[in-house]
Amino acid sequence: MARNDIPYKIYLTESEMPKYWYNLRADMKNKPAPLLNPGTHQPMTAEELNGVFCDELVRQELDNDTREYPVPQEILDFYKMYRPSPLVRAYCLEKKLNTPAKIYYKFEGNNTSGSHKLNSAIAQAYYAKMQGLKGVTTETGAGQWGTALSMACAYFELDCKVYMVKVSYEQKPFRREVMRVYGASVTPSPSMTTQVGQKILAEHPGTTGSLGCAISEAVETAVGNPGYRYVLGSVLNQVLLHQSVIGMETKIAMDKYDIKPDVIIGCAGGGSNLGGLIAPFMGEKLRGEADYDIVAVEPASCPSLTRGVYAYDFCDTGMVCPLAKMYTLGSDFIPAPNHAGGLRYHGMSPILSQLYDDGMMRAISVPQTRVFEAAEAFARTEGILPAPESSHAICAAIDEAMKCKETGEEKTILFGLTGTGYFDLVAYEKFHNGQMDDYIPTDDELEQFRARLPRI
Amino acid sequence: MARNDIPYKIYLTESEMPKYWYNLRADMKNKPAPLLNPGTHQPMTAEELNGVFCDELVRQELDNDTREYPVPQEILDFYKMYRPSPLVRAYCLEKKLNTPAKIYYKFEGNNTSGSHKLNSAIAQAYYAKMQGLKGVTTETGAGQWGTALSMACAYFELDCKVYMVKVSYEQKPFRREVMRVYGASVTPSPSMTTQVGQKILAEHPGTTGSLGCAISEAVETAVGNPGYRYVLGSVLNQVLLHQSVIGMETKIAMDKYDIKPDVIIGCAGGGSNLGGLIAPFMGEKLRGEADYDIVAVEPASCPSLTRGVYAYDFCDTGMVCPLAKMYTLGSDFIPAPNHAGGLRYHGMSPILSQLYDDGMMRAISVPQTRVFEAAEAFARTEGILPAPESSHAICAAIDEAMKCKETGEEKTILFGLTGTGYFDLVAYEKFHNGQMDDYIPTDDELEQFRARLPRI
Repeated sequence: MARNDIPYKIYLTESEMPKYWYNLRADMKNKPAPLLNPGTHQPMTAEELNGVFCDELVRQELDNDTREYPVPQEILDFYKMYRPSPLVRAYCLEKKLNTPAKIYYKFEGNNTSGSHKLNSAIAQAYYAKMQGLKGVTTETGAGQWGTALSMACAYFELDCKVYMVKVSYEQKPFRREVMRVYGASVTPSPSMTTQVGQKILAEHPGTTGSLGCAISEAVETAVGNPGYRYVLGSVLNQVLLHQSVIGMETKIAMDKYDIKPDVIIGCAGGGSNLGGLIAPFMGEKLRGEADYDIVAVEPASCPSLTRGVYAYDFCDTGMVCPLAKMYTLGSDFIPAPNHAGGLRYHGMSPILSQLYDDGMMRAISVPQTRVFEAAEAFARTEGILPAPESSHAICAAIDEAMKCKETGEEKTILFGLTGTGYFDLVAYEKFHNGQMDDYIPTDDELEQFRARLPRI
Repeated sequence: MARNDIPYKIYLTESEMPKYWYNLRADMKNKPAPLLNPGTHQPMTAEELNGVFCDELVRQELDNDTREYPVPQEILDFYKMYRPSPLVRAYCLEKKLNTPAKIYYKFEGNNTSGSHKLNSAIAQAYYAKMQGLKGVTTETGAGQWGTALSMACAYFELDCKVYMVKVSYEQKPFRREVMRVYGASVTPSPSMTTQVGQKILAEHPGTTGSLGCAISEAVETAVGNPGYRYVLGSVLNQVLLHQSVIGMETKIAMDKYDIKPDVIIGCAGGGSNLGGLIAPFMGEKLRGEADYDIVAVEPASCPSLTRGVYAYDFCDTGMVCPLAKMYTLGSDFIPAPNHAGGLRYHGMSPILSQLYDDGMMRAISVPQTRVFEAAEAFARTEGILPAPESSHAICAAIDEAMKCKETGEEKTILFGLTGTGYFDLVAYEKFHNGQMDDYIPTDDELEQFRARLPRI
């Protein structure tokens, strides 16, 4: 029974803050499948990965056993800048919905990068600095990850080279400008600065770029520049490890007030936020200590869990990255041009893919106009302008709460509010002007992409 | 002597939160001069003001005596959404500057409106609702106030009509879109919807609008529509009363840990933030209980305190509003077109004007390129992208801290960080591209505007 003295917003005190990241893989009976060398199809070794990623991050990537990783003091110090994030009871939304459900959200948007991405950015920048590197390279689509990494690199005085998908670079000049405030160099991708970029531009001169292509350029730049490594904001095991701080804080806060969530909901693109939020709860579920209804919410226009296949696939367009076994739509799948809600990666984190395949969580997809309706309702009642990505979780949480209204159940619903929508107002404008529709790929279309999966 | 257990960020608990607003006027020996009827030049009566403002807000506007106003429960409930705001020790900035000074800032940007403006917006919307009104009208320049008011009106289900300075309406579509998310109607000003707008457009067909003109349109619309009143986001006594919550929270937090600020710094446009931040500290100073060095920071391109005159002036271009006695540059003064840093109102709050004239505070002005340098340094060290307005205070705080470095003094510096700069990236871009200069009006130019002040 939850206590009566629960604050509206729960902030942990400094002494209550988690001191370690939780490695979910330690409790998984079926471990996520290893990354494979794209040439030999053999599992990638640490030696092979060390050329691309920082040494310590490679260790974390491959470590399926260590349960707890102490958070380095320098990262704990940085956390003080923006953590703990609040766990908020959505009283106003509950009242508006007139639901007996209790709704909580963990809000990760109160930092300048505007999202949870900073949690892994600061960790990856720290390890790069510790290794004595000059800088890091990365890709960014809408720019949340690039902004977060720029902030983290400014803090450690590391150089930061960001390849930004060209269409976003041109349409989201403000995101680019925030990265420049933090001293990053931002290059529209595809570009002439890499071989893979030159090749893509030669073949498709008018291309507006894609995430998969930007990844290829960033990796090539890291490998070709001494003192640089590549960093990635989602999908990887190491990222979910760093993001476990979201779930750890949430669980400590809920335990403190004897709150037990019945349903845990997160949006899912590459899986960084969902994997982080659910980590300690899923750990209990894996160890048979508790049960939770865990729900991944993805866009109907990019439905990797709900309509993809579980198979080895390329992580990037240039096929320079290792192969990962994941729920995937095929590495050249790109959501329809009118898709505005983010979460557009073709595959899902190998850890989450395995858990989903094992029946430890479920997945649903929602069309984008419903997502923006939920976003607007949330903004008006809870006073936070949510990112479209986060609004997928809001939409599913509202649906759960409305089910409770029908059944009279007093479920406790927890969802992850990953970020703010200050840089997504073009999408909001489309929604307001009735220019947003809900294109959902047909089975035939998806089959075409599936047919091009590597045969392994 | 300050305690040793001071958290990095101080959040008051719900029980520690202030329960009343502090009315600084109660402790002023020299009260601010009354508003005058623009026709008769006699002090405005409550009856005259009731046609424009809500009844309770008129009472607050004219009340120079009541020291404490209990905050209505409905407003305390809304506060829970985004208050308390954190009082932050700027450790990273101190380290970067290598100063013996201790720097604290009160951060008001962690709400979707992005600034402190929400504090008065929610109060004004509440009293409009209590009076049974249908809605409110207002003007907005860059859009901070309009956004805040839209949020507050959505919460109380009030209609909200915003006149937005045309140049901002066109150049800041995202601000406009946030207001639409909250259900406000936004009209570019000058418009054909009002007589004053039609007149201005007839005389100056190509005008891009001004704050003074948008005020006139909003007032005309309020007066002409039954069930509507006009609300304003700065300058007025009532606004400073509501904004005292900033200073009250700050003082409670500092008292809790035995911290005493030596210097208190705030940016100053119309005075809403500065008046709110300093309120309880100035109260002690007025009562002779403590001394503080209180500093208003204004743009060198709009220097109402440092280079204006203390006189009765029009608040708006259409001259439909009451006259206010304030430090003013003249009601048709508009900062140079390249001015990017906000704080562009021609006059200063009558309360602050009186306090400044009485020698209770000092004022400085800073050129905008120095403001943006400070903004960028702050963003890189403290991880918050500040609004240009707020960055005036950052700039002055850094200067104070650097003086301490020279003298070895361990001063405690407090400044108000009023908001975030997510919607100011065009200005940041100009700064990065070297397209920003520091135009400062000449004495001759200022004299021309002064010559047109009303003779009272």
